[in-house]
Amino acid sequence: MAELHVTSASNPRIRAVLALRRRRVREAEGRTIVDGYDELGLALDAGVVPDTVLHCPELMLDPQRQGALVEQARAVGATTVRLSRAAFEKAAYREGPDGFLAVVPVAGAALDDLDLPPDPLVLVCEALEKPGNLGAVLRTADAAGVAAVVAADPLTDWGNPNVVRASKGTVFSVPVAAATTREVLEWLRRNGIRLVATTPDTETAHTAVDYRGAVAIAVGTEKEGLTDVALRAADARVRIPMAGRVNSLNAATAAAVVVYEAVRQRTG
Amino acid sequence: MAELHVTSASNPRIRAVLALRRRRVREAEGRTIVDGYDELGLALDAGVVPDTVLHCPELMLDPQRQGALVEQARAVGATTVRLSRAAFEKAAYREGPDGFLAVVPVAGAALDDLDLPPDPLVLVCEALEKPGNLGAVLRTADAAGVAAVVAADPLTDWGNPNVVRASKGTVFSVPVAAATTREVLEWLRRNGIRLVATTPDTETAHTAVDYRGAVAIAVGTEKEGLTDVALRAADARVRIPMAGRVNSLNAATAAAVVVYEAVRQRTG
Repeated sequence: MAELHVTSASNPRIRAVLALRRRRVREAEGRTIVDGYDELGLALDAGVVPDTVLHCPELMLDPQRQGALVEQARAVGATTVRLSRAAFEKAAYREGPDGFLAVVPVAGAALDDLDLPPDPLVLVCEALEKPGNLGAVLRTADAAGVAAVVAADPLTDWGNPNVVRASKGTVFSVPVAAATTREVLEWLRRNGIRLVATTPDTETAHTAVDYRGAVAIAVGTEKEGLTDVALRAADARVRIPMAGRVNSLNAATAAAVVVYEAVRQRTG
Repeated sequence: MAELHVTSASNPRIRAVLALRRRRVREAEGRTIVDGYDELGLALDAGVVPDTVLHCPELMLDPQRQGALVEQARAVGATTVRLSRAAFEKAAYREGPDGFLAVVPVAGAALDDLDLPPDPLVLVCEALEKPGNLGAVLRTADAAGVAAVVAADPLTDWGNPNVVRASKGTVFSVPVAAATTREVLEWLRRNGIRLVATTPDTETAHTAVDYRGAVAIAVGTEKEGLTDVALRAADARVRIPMAGRVNSLNAATAAAVVVYEAVRQRTG
């Protein structure tokens, strides 16, 4: 079958891609955008099956080599569409697009469908809003081998294209879920996962508790921290020792420091 | 003396503030911009003496309480200028300005003028470019009590207003310097500071070396890592264990993970 070749920026396929910038459309369709060669490659490696891959050889750094990714997507069932440069630049989400853009199912499972290993290390992010922070948390989770990242009372959806981009595609390789804080707390209890909550309001250093076994680390927003309901449900509350004048690390940084202390203990 | 009250957005003082958005002007004048109540407060607490504080009560959340910061700046010798809302919004660097903007000396000392405590913990950032990363590194350094942050072969100046902002003002509370990588390596040797270099190309985990005593931790860019000259000069090379599919944490995150392991060992 000959591949579709689109040169008009007003093509309905392009309009459909642009519509996915809106959260309401993403949630109605369960679809989002992956923009970039590396990110799409990671999604495909993680088993994601794109609906559509839009590509533009003129924008690719190395069309000969990178074109194989288009074949790989087609082989798993994606429709592939070649775009003219003008059409691609209209459709692309990021500045300086590299010739790869795909429509994929939004990442995320229901809590009870998360496939956890024995003694999982889980990260719970409560009410985080900034896509850059959520993306950074996912990269940390990927690097640290975290079993799942759960958004509690999320303000930003896992399908947000800025989350996808800031995560470098790890939103597809790390198991993620979203639920209310109460649902998350119940799920932790049902699964026998201890909750370690980070908060400035404790004297216990984050290095002073035991992270072995089934453990969830919870982080809240920089401004408000974790909610009282999350703090009350915690089995331990820890703080990262702060010597300085500013009373809070970036939320993603704080998560990384505590997660890597857990990794140190769990592999030591 | 009656305070100057400026209502015209074309006032020469405002033009002078706008000119500081350009690196060349910042470097020629040794001045930069601090935008925001919290950031200016931190700078003043750190002993920074602003040349000028521009303020706009109409934009302040709580003019009565926050106005005290204007008095505090005037008391240390700053000229204060009240701006109309239109003039302030023209001059302000960030979106959603909060009524405080100051012209201050750029942070940074010559390497040999850094005032180090015994057995300092130093952070060296080589060739970091993104202001957001440099700002995040400074917040971590502030929180962790790092003695100095040194930019080696910097691509971005410490005066960059986006660094100032991303650092939440900690660029003024943490001692900073900038120099070539060779100068930094010589300075470390002269001062008997051991160098621990982070790199993916080693089997040594970052938790497997001793960070007590006088130690510098060096991080490079996400893409290129540290230069060979920095890696060769290192007393130890360490990697953060990565379980995932993406081979690199964000540079600021990696710095935080290693710095807090050092803090753990040094305070344990």
